[in-house]
Order: sequence, then structure tokens, then C-alpha cells
Amino acid sequence: MRFSKNQLERYPVYLKYFKELKEEGFSEVSSPKIAVRLGYSEEQVRKDLQAVSRVSGKPKRGRDLDQLIEDLEEFLGYRAPKAAILIGAGHLGAALLNYPPFEEMGIRILAAFDIDEEVIGKSIGGKTVYHLNELPNVLPSLGASIAIIAVPASAAQEVADLSLSCGIAGIWNFAPTSLSVPDGAAIVNVNLASSLAVLSHRLSRGSN
Amino acid sequence: MRFSKNQLERYPVYLKYFKELKEEGFSEVSSPKIAVRLGYSEEQVRKDLQAVSRVSGKPKRGRDLDQLIEDLEEFLGYRAPKAAILIGAGHLGAALLNYPPFEEMGIRILAAFDIDEEVIGKSIGGKTVYHLNELPNVLPSLGASIAIIAVPASAAQEVADLSLSCGIAGIWNFAPTSLSVPDGAAIVNVNLASSLAVLSHRLSRGSN
Repeated sequence: MRFSKNQLERYPVYLKYFKELKEEGFSEVSSPKIAVRLGYSEEQVRKDLQAVSRVSGKPKRGRDLDQLIEDLEEFLGYRAPKAAILIGAGHLGAALLNYPPFEEMGIRILAAFDIDEEVIGKSIGGKTVYHLNELPNVLPSLGASIAIIAVPASAAQEVADLSLSCGIAGIWNFAPTSLSVPDGAAIVNVNLASSLAVLSHRLSRGSN
Repeated sequence: MRFSKNQLERYPVYLKYFKELKEEGFSEVSSPKIAVRLGYSEEQVRKDLQAVSRVSGKPKRGRDLDQLIEDLEEFLGYRAPKAAILIGAGHLGAALLNYPPFEEMGIRILAAFDIDEEVIGKSIGGKTVYHLNELPNVLPSLGASIAIIAVPASAAQEVADLSLSCGIAGIWNFAPTSLSVPDGAAIVNVNLASSLAVLSHRLSRGSN
């Protein structure tokens, strides 16, 4: 089964909505209702959910919410959080170290790394900041598979290469530049300029 | 001309690459070279660039870099930065107030708003933090069209509604929840859970 990027990005949106419905007291939900609320087509909703869940809709009722939530959490890996490290404990890095929702998103940051003596040895959001030179020594004991990169653009590729050479399997890049990684490594760039380009265009068009 | 979300998100990536090439001393670039470097198809590159620039490729040479950069900056609105306010000056909000690349992304944050007396009246990243109650009074003099929302999920919809009622035209939402806005208003949700879902899937598949 191949999943498109857009499709993968929709699953956390479904999950969030289903949890809201459950809190409101619902036990089932229909594809048309989901489609209207989230602005997707009914066909897309059915296709998306069939790909990750065996829950089928019953006529006049809908799909079982508990089962949908369980299947989505399973698919998204929320039931077995992945260990991560963060590199770059500046303003953005500190915000990410203090970001409570990560615990619900299947990721757990265990430690941070930086080269600024001002922050090394400190604890930010409950995580110790080590010198970046310590990465090869500290990483094995942490068992982290993901490196969150929040360094300036000019240092990002070097830091990514170092992480991968130390055993990291996936890079979540918050630096304002696109990084390249070798085959076999995973990368997702969080590109705020791209997000802003969509907003600017919608603003100029005068619609959402 | 209609632009897809994915297409709009590619334009800042092109621009970044073209600026790098220029710094490296190049004056022209060909579609095949762009396609290989950025991982897009040649057809996609040609279609994307034709939609925003009149620069055509010359056989055996390529497209003029200066003109491409000018056309992309014009299209993305980088030559006339939009004024913005930020609501929610906690960890994430403070990081956004201190995020230097915004100045190059066509957005300028002029002021921040919060309800926490600890931060009200302070200056973060050079921007004054006002009480949220001051929004209706302060906003007209700022002339801001964009509200960047960095409050907890539970408060985000209320803050978005308030912003729009005070004259904001577009919402850039960093709260971990999807917001709905009336027709005519623009919104883009920065959904970190969605971004992470893509990374997790690529990790489990063992590829980029």
C-alpha cells in the first residue's frame, strides 16, 4: 500500500476529530459527516479510512469511533512513541523542547545538543542539553531514531550528516533550508516559507 | 490561474535554490538541472515556472537566474512584506517572535498579544506584548492583515474569531488544532502532527 504525502497528513486530522466526537458523547460517525466537517470528499474519506482500518460503515449509522481511534493511533505509531533527540537549543529548539503535544504525537524527546556554552549542561523542558561533540557517546544509550534539527540554515546539512553517521534513521528538519539525505534515511522538512506561501496566495485571492 | 497547495509550497523551495546557485556564481539554470536537484519531474518544473515567470529556457543554456528570482519574489510577495501580529507569547510564540527568516519570507511581525500578566508590557524579539483585550484598539494603527496564532489548542478558535472580527484577513495557525474560518477569510494550519505522520511512515518504510 502506497500512501501519498497529503493522505498521510490527513490521518492526524481525522484522529483529532474522532477524539473530539468521542468527548462529545458520540460512539459512531459516518463518512458524509466526516467529509463535511473536514472539507474532504466522501470518496476520499472512505478510501483513507479503508487503508488503515477494518471498521466499515453500517447503513444509517456509521463507523465505530473507538475502533477508528484505535486503528489510527496504531497506524500513526502513537501507541509506541519513538525516541528523539533535538539539535539546536536556541529559541525555536527551546520551544520544541517545551511543546506538550509531542507526547500525544508519538514522539518523545530525550535530550538536546548544542554548541553554545551558555546552554550546555542546562535542562530545558526537562531535557539535558549536551555539547554536540557528545552526540556519538550519548546517542547509543538513548536509543533515539529521530533527530529534530533546529539549528541555523547554514549548519543544518552538517548536523544532519553527523546525526545519520551516529545512527539516527530519520530527520525532522525545522531549519529554514531543504536538506538532502542518502537513500535509506528518512527526512521531512518543516518549511514555514512554504506554509506562508499558501497563506499569502489565499489572502491575495481573498478566500480560504 | 489556479494553484494547488503542493505547487504553492514548491515556490519558496525554487527561490531558495536559485539564490544558492546565484551565490555560487551561476547566471542561468536549466529545467532538467532543477528537476534533479529538487526531486521534481521536469514537466512539473516547467509548468510551475511558466505559471509565475515569463523567463523561458534557451536551448543548451537555461533560464536567467536574476529574472527567475525577481519573478518568484514578486509572486510570493517578498518585495512588499505583509504586516502581522502574533497572539500567544509563550514558548512557541517567543520562538516565532525571534525567528529571523520571517523578514525574508514576506512577513513582518509588529506586535504580540497575550493574557499572561508575566509577559504583558515586555518586549520579545523587539516586539511589544500587549494584553489581548487591547487588540481592537491597537490593531487599526498597525495595519496588520495576518494573525499568527500560537495559543493552546483550547483557546485557538476563540482567538481566531476575535482576530477576524477586529479586521484580520488571514490566520496562520500554529495551535495544535484545525480551525475553521468564514468564507472570505484565509487560513493555513501548521500541523506538526501531520508533518510527523509523514516522517513516521517514511521511517517505518525505511526510505526518504
